[in-house]
Amino acid sequence: MSYNTFGHLFRVTTWGESHGPAIGCVIDGCPPRVPLDVADIQPWLDRRRPGQSKFTTQRQEADQVEILSGVFEGRTTGTPISLVIRNTDQRSRDYGDIATRYRPGHADVAYDMKYGIRDYRGGGRSSARETAMRVAAGAVARKVLGDMVSIRGALVQVGPHAVDRARMDWEIVNDNPLFCPDATMLPVWEGYLADIRRKGSSIGAVIEVVAEGVPPGLGAPIYGKLDSDLAMALMSINAVKGVEIGEGFASACLTGEENADPMRMENGRVRFASNHAGGVLGGISTGQPVVARFAVKPTSSILTPVPSVTREGENVDVMTKGRHDPCVGIRAVPVGEAMMACVLADHLLRHRGQVGSHDPVVL
Amino acid sequence: MSYNTFGHLFRVTTWGESHGPAIGCVIDGCPPRVPLDVADIQPWLDRRRPGQSKFTTQRQEADQVEILSGVFEGRTTGTPISLVIRNTDQRSRDYGDIATRYRPGHADVAYDMKYGIRDYRGGGRSSARETAMRVAAGAVARKVLGDMVSIRGALVQVGPHAVDRARMDWEIVNDNPLFCPDATMLPVWEGYLADIRRKGSSIGAVIEVVAEGVPPGLGAPIYGKLDSDLAMALMSINAVKGVEIGEGFASACLTGEENADPMRMENGRVRFASNHAGGVLGGISTGQPVVARFAVKPTSSILTPVPSVTREGENVDVMTKGRHDPCVGIRAVPVGEAMMACVLADHLLRHRGQVGSHDPVVL
Amino acid sequence: MSYNTFGHLFRVTTWGESHGPAIGCVIDGCPPRVPLDVADIQPWLDRRRPGQSKFTTQRQEADQVEILSGVFEGRTTGTPISLVIRNTDQRSRDYGDIATRYRPGHADVAYDMKYGIRDYRGGGRSSARETAMRVAAGAVARKVLGDMVSIRGALVQVGPHAVDRARMDWEIVNDNPLFCPDATMLPVWEGYLADIRRKGSSIGAVIEVVAEGVPPGLGAPIYGKLDSDLAMALMSINAVKGVEIGEGFASACLTGEENADPMRMENGRVRFASNHAGGVLGGISTGQPVVARFAVKPTSSILTPVPSVTREGENVDVMTKGRHDPCVGIRAVPVGEAMMACVLADHLLRHRGQVGSHDPVVL
Amino acid sequence: MSYNTFGHLFRVTTWGESHGPAIGCVIDGCPPRVPLDVADIQPWLDRRRPGQSKFTTQRQEADQVEILSGVFEGRTTGTPISLVIRNTDQRSRDYGDIATRYRPGHADVAYDMKYGIRDYRGGGRSSARETAMRVAAGAVARKVLGDMVSIRGALVQVGPHAVDRARMDWEIVNDNPLFCPDATMLPVWEGYLADIRRKGSSIGAVIEVVAEGVPPGLGAPIYGKLDSDLAMALMSINAVKGVEIGEGFASACLTGEENADPMRMENGRVRFASNHAGGVLGGISTGQPVVARFAVKPTSSILTPVPSVTREGENVDVMTKGRHDPCVGIRAVPVGEAMMACVLADHLLRHRGQVGSHDPVVL
Repeated sequence: MSYNTFGHLFRVTTWGESHGPAIGCVIDGCPPRVPLDVADIQPWLDRRRPGQSKFTTQRQEADQVEILSGVFEGRTTGTPISLVIRNTDQRSRDYGDIATRYRPGHADVAYDMKYGIRDYRGGGRSSARETAMRVAAGAVARKVLGDMVSIRGALVQVGPHAVDRARMDWEIVNDNPLFCPDATMLPVWEGYLADIRRKGSSIGAVIEVVAEGVPPGLGAPIYGKLDSDLAMALMSINAVKGVEIGEGFASACLTGEENADPMRMENGRVRFASNHAGGVLGGISTGQPVVARFAVKPTSSILTPVPSVTREGENVDVMTKGRHDPCVGIRAVPVGEAMMACVLADHLLRHRGQVGSHDPVVL
Repeated sequence: MSYNTFGHLFRVTTWGESHGPAIGCVIDGCPPRVPLDVADIQPWLDRRRPGQSKFTTQRQEADQVEILSGVFEGRTTGTPISLVIRNTDQRSRDYGDIATRYRPGHADVAYDMKYGIRDYRGGGRSSARETAMRVAAGAVARKVLGDMVSIRGALVQVGPHAVDRARMDWEIVNDNPLFCPDATMLPVWEGYLADIRRKGSSIGAVIEVVAEGVPPGLGAPIYGKLDSDLAMALMSINAVKGVEIGEGFASACLTGEENADPMRMENGRVRFASNHAGGVLGGISTGQPVVARFAVKPTSSILTPVPSVTREGENVDVMTKGRHDPCVGIRAVPVGEAMMACVLADHLLRHRGQVGSHDPVVL
Repeated sequence: MSYNTFGHLFRVTTWGESHGPAIGCVIDGCPPRVPLDVADIQPWLDRRRPGQSKFTTQRQEADQVEILSGVFEGRTTGTPISLVIRNTDQRSRDYGDIATRYRPGHADVAYDMKYGIRDYRGGGRSSARETAMRVAAGAVARKVLGDMVSIRGALVQVGPHAVDRARMDWEIVNDNPLFCPDATMLPVWEGYLADIRRKGSSIGAVIEVVAEGVPPGLGAPIYGKLDSDLAMALMSINAVKGVEIGEGFASACLTGEENADPMRMENGRVRFASNHAGGVLGGISTGQPVVARFAVKPTSSILTPVPSVTREGENVDVMTKGRHDPCVGIRAVPVGEAMMACVLADHLLRHRGQVGSHDPVVL
Repeated sequence: MSYNTFGHLFRVTTWGESHGPAIGCVIDGCPPRVPLDVADIQPWLDRRRPGQSKFTTQRQEADQVEILSGVFEGRTTGTPISLVIRNTDQRSRDYGDIATRYRPGHADVAYDMKYGIRDYRGGGRSSARETAMRVAAGAVARKVLGDMVSIRGALVQVGPHAVDRARMDWEIVNDNPLFCPDATMLPVWEGYLADIRRKGSSIGAVIEVVAEGVPPGLGAPIYGKLDSDLAMALMSINAVKGVEIGEGFASACLTGEENADPMRMENGRVRFASNHAGGVLGGISTGQPVVARFAVKPTSSILTPVPSVTREGENVDVMTKGRHDPCVGIRAVPVGEAMMACVLADHLLRHRGQVGSHDPVVL
């Protein structure tokens, strides 16, 4: 990954600012003859779209994606796929403060430190709006992976309230606006978030993404490991501060005995009795579900004034009025899924490139 | 990163198997005229070298590095720097089991799934021996960063025993073989690890790496963020299952108020009152210390037999005899520092390439 | 370069098909705070635009470029610059033949061999229309290079008619639609091309591009040499079959004495008495003008029927009716300049990244 | 390509200076299970080795290659292949002049302009000695391509003396030290070169490389075209000043009728009646032989003094004593073949990655 492109063979380049005329992406290296049209992409964008509940920002965007190239008569051609979404709800009126007063915890000051200039309108390039194009690219990646691979994500922790693994039910995730997989936890979160919202506060969260059906052999050690590419992809999402695979940080407390994933042959294939590893050994997929989690910090946009500085070097106190997202982790669920899909599609092509279609020795 | 190369402008390619004739790396893109000789690299290798205490593997290697190119009369020339370490302690006698019986939790089975072949001697390419070259490259990266940047790491958790932040003392880290920064905790760890070792068991750990003096402006959003590159670099280390920046996973439980890093002007520069962000905002360094932590799983090499399979598809139980590393996280400390150094050196050059030497607007 | 992206730090990704809704490019890695608006780009596009004389295709496109991102208040922000041109003259009526009958000498058959699918309308992705985005990117690259560097191109040979170097006059190049630098040769070409056009034939050409003011030190040996990157960039232009630097193929006939470029100090700088090398030694610029030439084959679109095959594997004879370009080399002049500009801008940033702003020892 | 690495999936990184302890390369991304040992590489190195006739430099090196990694029990493992050649004939005595006096036409001055430092011994990194590792990598690439693809090169022009195409006989190329394919021309060249050598002069040359059996579909438009990657690869060879594909510069003089390659079906496959295109259409291989030529300038190392400057900025006259290569183009033949092999191997993997193993629609 570098700058605004990620992926090696399945390569995604995104562009656009929150309040510019449009945002978009170019997907290069997509295999040819993959069935694709807007209807394959739009539902995923709709799922990420803000304004769908009181717990996400009230910005209203249709987020209608347009395919400008790379698809002909309903199939990809192997040439670059250009996707664009026009920005329609730009509210250009309320920028004054952001232009000169750095929002604490936001990228404002860092962009100025680096570039000496920034499009401050709505956060410009650093806005979470950019993630819409990740979701769009992820939708294309899913088509490349085909029905073989299933990717799903859920919110598993909001503030101090983690789901109970014993109650975890993927079936209900898409039936509630919080992507909650725990029916008992759902009302707890709703009450908790309503309170956070009322106070003009914000809270962090943890998201889990699981990919099932991933063929063994994906991943390119030593420096293109499947898990290190996932770590980069997930850490690149706005506000993410931690990434883990399988047992993750919990493995620090485990002994080798507790962390072991015993193997046995079953119908001519290797079967693992457990999945502490999260589907990856030595950076290579083993055929088990690939399990990743990532932590999202609370947004810095809160009603409480926080000491800050201006571009001109004066001390000020900054509070964030207007649209408010009590838990930005909610909308990170579809984004995390999309990044998982893109990484897997890229590694599928990379594996095919180096190794071809050889059958695994043991599967 | 891809395959066996990482970095964009400061690029490191490693090669070699645990029990082949040698391991090595090529560092390409290093700035010219940087003072460099073996004495700049060897001490870091000595620090990582196994066999220095009873808590790390008893493999004995001199790990004597040789510079084969890219340095002339004590300074880098801007051409590729080739470093090599001859393998001397290869113990070729005891491979029989590994060749056919997959060690559970190791990369053995995954390499075979991917490549259909592997150099099984000592783990081959997947051996932690490869990390010696990361440390060597990190030593060169430190020279590129110069005295401005200071990077140090410590073990902060072993199994359930985490250091007490209030007692944390960087001065003592290099005075004990466990890289422990907490004098009170050190004997606890020693006793705990002696017990783990006696049982033929193993335990996980958490390592923290801090870089001070990092200039603001490093990092290339959206997909070459400083933190996402760090996540990839640290996750690529053997046995790492999780990476976090600043508050990391703890931020999931924080409110926006608790997580805020207030800013104030101080002597014409921005000063932050706290560093929950870990030195990175929007993927760009802010001048604060860059703080990363990563979790290392317990090694799967334990004396307890674990169900496994053979290459030929038969069920077996595998236990690991011979050299034993009760906590592989210990030796990961110098490796984590090295990866931090390489990522920072790369981003320093990348920033200079795109932006040149402009003075930050606010610093 | 890979797929649809070229450049390393100054990276250009183009997308779009000849008869799709639009074509575009994303320029990533552009330095921040470079003054840029549509008026900096449009004139170069106008210069390349077809339909300006009877010697180029009569396709009429306004080729009006739009900036969708990466520019704020008239300056670049360091974030990706998205440029788009809507296709307006798509003439969707006359595709039937192309869909099934491969035009000999065109990419039709090769795209089908590779991808098994192609957007055949107007040549799709393989159309010279793509070069409009190269010209747009080149305009941005010129802004990065600044006034220091001047890049200009000319047609120097049309069929058997080469310009006389003694009469070469850069001043007149932009005053005639053939980019001819030789006032005596101009009417010869006009007559010759009128004849070619009348016959429904086509003819090849040679283009020369010269960059003056290139700072010494650009180029990254061994595999990112300035001249090898130029060779790739120019060879990637449609219909180009040869690239040379300095004396080029003529150097095969020269002795070491004839080919020598003597050096002398002059006002504290190295001055070369001649420029057989074309401004590059060992892959690195020397401060002399960088001189490249490339050969463009005659277009295969001619009125004479040529044996061909259909997608279904039947023999047919194909002749090209409709729009006709007797010498596609003419329009390659602005494209060659643009590729030179992009390569130089990329190497300027790459040099700055690795080496910083050190003063050359001798200049 | 960038710095000292080329290729995308089949990636070659070379390192080493002419008079350092060793030169080497790392080949990353090679498919696993390819039979490989030293005997597959050494013969190609022997063929390139200098000192085999009076027409190449008298430097005597055994050029004995050693495989340090990536091969296990005679087959590649998919991990990086490290190759090294120890330098044995370093003649460290005669450097004095080169250190301070720039050899005109050599990279000496350019390296100092760029890096401010250089290993001047024997030309350091800019020495043609580096090409030994290209040949070694090419030998591995040939194994990846397998017996399907045959690559051969020949010298086709020395100074004003070009071979007669009607007499061209590939069978005799390896039977003479000049790689001459024209039995009648061979004595002419021998006499001509003896004369050049006697005078202490040098002369340029043209090399042709042809790859037969290349599968259709290789090449990644727009910016990873097979021919543009070839152009870069060949232009990166020391002293190369021009590259052409198929008709190359001659196509500038051809009409569309003359340049046409008619197609007809033959046994269910497309057959071309001629190959003006050189095997590439739209940047994609068509199944025809891929034909490339490149021009090599006369070496600047001649006995005639040429005006030059010193590192300290004084005017001097420089003549080259000692080892002498009257026509460096001769030894470029195996190097050109090797670069062709590497580019094709890389594109084979790239094509397989994006497109998989689909059967071409027409072949």
